[in-house]
Amino acid sequence: MNHKASTELQTLERESSRNGHPRALDRWMLSLLQRGFGRAPVGFVLWDGTQTSPPEGPVAGRLLVKDRRTLVSLLLDPELNFGEAYTTGRLEVLGDLPSMLEETYRAWEKDGRSARPAPRLAVRRPNTLRRARENIHHHYDIGNEFYRLWLDEQMLYTCAYFPVPGETLERAQVAKMDHVCRKLRLRPGDRVVEAGCGWGALALHMARHYGTEVKAFNISTEQVRYGRDRARSEGLDGRVEFIEDDYRNIRGRFDVFVSVGMLEHVGKERYSALGEVIDRCLRADGGRGLLHFIGRDRVRPLNAWVRRRIFPGAYPPTLREALGDVLEPRGLSVLDVENLRLHYARTLEHWLARFEGAVGQVRAMFGEPFVRAWRLYLAGSRAAFATGWMQLFQVVFARPGDNEIPSTRDHLYGERA
Amino acid sequence: MNHKASTELQTLERESSRNGHPRALDRWMLSLLQRGFGRAPVGFVLWDGTQTSPPEGPVAGRLLVKDRRTLVSLLLDPELNFGEAYTTGRLEVLGDLPSMLEETYRAWEKDGRSARPAPRLAVRRPNTLRRARENIHHHYDIGNEFYRLWLDEQMLYTCAYFPVPGETLERAQVAKMDHVCRKLRLRPGDRVVEAGCGWGALALHMARHYGTEVKAFNISTEQVRYGRDRARSEGLDGRVEFIEDDYRNIRGRFDVFVSVGMLEHVGKERYSALGEVIDRCLRADGGRGLLHFIGRDRVRPLNAWVRRRIFPGAYPPTLREALGDVLEPRGLSVLDVENLRLHYARTLEHWLARFEGAVGQVRAMFGEPFVRAWRLYLAGSRAAFATGWMQLFQVVFARPGDNEIPSTRDHLYGERA
Repeated sequence: MNHKASTELQTLERESSRNGHPRALDRWMLSLLQRGFGRAPVGFVLWDGTQTSPPEGPVAGRLLVKDRRTLVSLLLDPELNFGEAYTTGRLEVLGDLPSMLEETYRAWEKDGRSARPAPRLAVRRPNTLRRARENIHHHYDIGNEFYRLWLDEQMLYTCAYFPVPGETLERAQVAKMDHVCRKLRLRPGDRVVEAGCGWGALALHMARHYGTEVKAFNISTEQVRYGRDRARSEGLDGRVEFIEDDYRNIRGRFDVFVSVGMLEHVGKERYSALGEVIDRCLRADGGRGLLHFIGRDRVRPLNAWVRRRIFPGAYPPTLREALGDVLEPRGLSVLDVENLRLHYARTLEHWLARFEGAVGQVRAMFGEPFVRAWRLYLAGSRAAFATGWMQLFQVVFARPGDNEIPSTRDHLYGERA
Repeated sequence: MNHKASTELQTLERESSRNGHPRALDRWMLSLLQRGFGRAPVGFVLWDGTQTSPPEGPVAGRLLVKDRRTLVSLLLDPELNFGEAYTTGRLEVLGDLPSMLEETYRAWEKDGRSARPAPRLAVRRPNTLRRARENIHHHYDIGNEFYRLWLDEQMLYTCAYFPVPGETLERAQVAKMDHVCRKLRLRPGDRVVEAGCGWGALALHMARHYGTEVKAFNISTEQVRYGRDRARSEGLDGRVEFIEDDYRNIRGRFDVFVSVGMLEHVGKERYSALGEVIDRCLRADGGRGLLHFIGRDRVRPLNAWVRRRIFPGAYPPTLREALGDVLEPRGLSVLDVENLRLHYARTLEHWLARFEGAVGQVRAMFGEPFVRAWRLYLAGSRAAFATGWMQLFQVVFARPGDNEIPSTRDHLYGERA
């Protein structure tokens, strides 16, 4: 037991006297909660030290439930309230959070739980232009200073690509950009439109290293400002234009459409609109594109807590949904799909380690509940990708009948640029 | 105009006197027929020499309609009756058939015709076990002697893989098998099940070069006999078992499921059954598989004539259909999709050239209508892949949460074995 956990247990006496000794009802609720966790290797501890254990095998960690209210809330809506209680500190993890989450997902996958719907479904609200803006502001306008603490130096907030496992995060993000650019077969002079450009690293990379002209769309004010500043300071503002607007307002014709990490924020009911935008803005001959997005093997809503606190409006689609509702109605031809989920697990491992390394600064900026929420979100996401609960897909497409498409994928795996 | 075409025109007088001179009604039907071909660069000639031309641009070839009955039939159901009339010689092509078909598909793609349903839809009959057997017998039991005339020496009747454009067909088929084996990460001792194994080349290749044990299923009597003979003569009959049975009767547990060129014969209404078979026979940990199949960018039935005369019961699915109805309901995780349509265009070019090289023997075996039907089918298929009317997909999948999957695709593109 680590120091933190033992300190936690020392505080139990105080908690116990505040909550009173657990009654028969509490112990019954505890047993239900334990049963609800199935074969997850997770035990529970109540405020007075009462413990339960999983039905079989070793215990990866225990969850300390500090009061009756939390116990009840976990029974009512475990998916949402686990995050809520952990954030506020009413639930404590005795053990290593990341590995406990990973073991839990793995056990639940074996239980067949990934095939079952989540215990509770939130009402879906379509992403209108205004709501899309609110959702994105919620997450991305926390402040560039915060993200700078734990992202790579170019501020890429999407899955990196590790050509070799030990690659640094900085280099893996550059490798990801090159992987995307090679898949898009960028040529000097190509006009590229990017939907959802983050802090602009890919847009600038495409202009700097591939000689393209880029229009990059984003509805996050802070990110667009950052991208513009960077473009100016690097003398690329003549070739990269950052536009603070929704992808639905993209106008003009382009050789290339690219979107990295946006589709999961679009919302299922807008896929057909996205397909229309791609079709409208892509050159009739030789137009090509790439969608990079978080997805699923099976239809399942995003974790309820992540959807409420971290990514409102987000939904990771299956390939059937993404290909079937975005590309197929437009007759766009799918050339290549690659699943990079192991790269996202590794990326999140880097982010989590950097986040913990800067946790003092984060706490000073936003306080303890923020720290706990982000720790849970990063560790939970890492576990989801490491266990196959979430996927990362890159889909390359072209206009139908385009015979300039490469016939093999050798060009992606030749000498690295 | 080539010799054949000029001979054809010389026969027009005879035809003309038999059919009588075209009347106003014939000329009106002719103009409708020409209009129905849209922007295809194809003109028409009636039995008396009356000509029409496409509305714009150069003419890639003309179709000589030899009698009134054929003219009417082309108006009633062009897709089906083009093939019927060409086969019986009541329709003749003045010009190069393969390039005329290609130009036509290309023009129709620009017309947006690939997005519209075919003019006439046949009633779909589900592939029961008995009908599946009849359908496959129809095509594959014509006789090994026939296929030997124009396939490669190992008798692979599926899309080859050309690492370089000028590769020979024999080597491209071996390269395809290795591409598939690398995607499956075959290891010595792996138990492989192959659904729809043709003449057995891949099954034997997997056993010979990758040290696997293979059970190969096929409902074509002639193909199974051929495979067994070959296994015996190569001393592989202890490791490769050919089973004359339907994929639905696969029993046992395997490390690897592979199916090359079968899904397009399965029929949409059986995808869920196929998914069930894969799920049932694939090892829970580390099980992996590959589906290689002819597909589409958009939902559209197979050409009516090909469905009637060449491949009864066949249907090339979109990725949405194949991934959504076969793999997704089983929670299988898609790792990689590759579109190889340009390789199929090239493969068909080889087949067509070899077929024409052996056309005297084919004629002696089966007569002229058979020659014409197969010429049309091979040339039409080549045109469909060359113009993007059809796709060739290879889909690699694994059990969810399997972290032994390769994180990059470098292993497919290293030193060739």
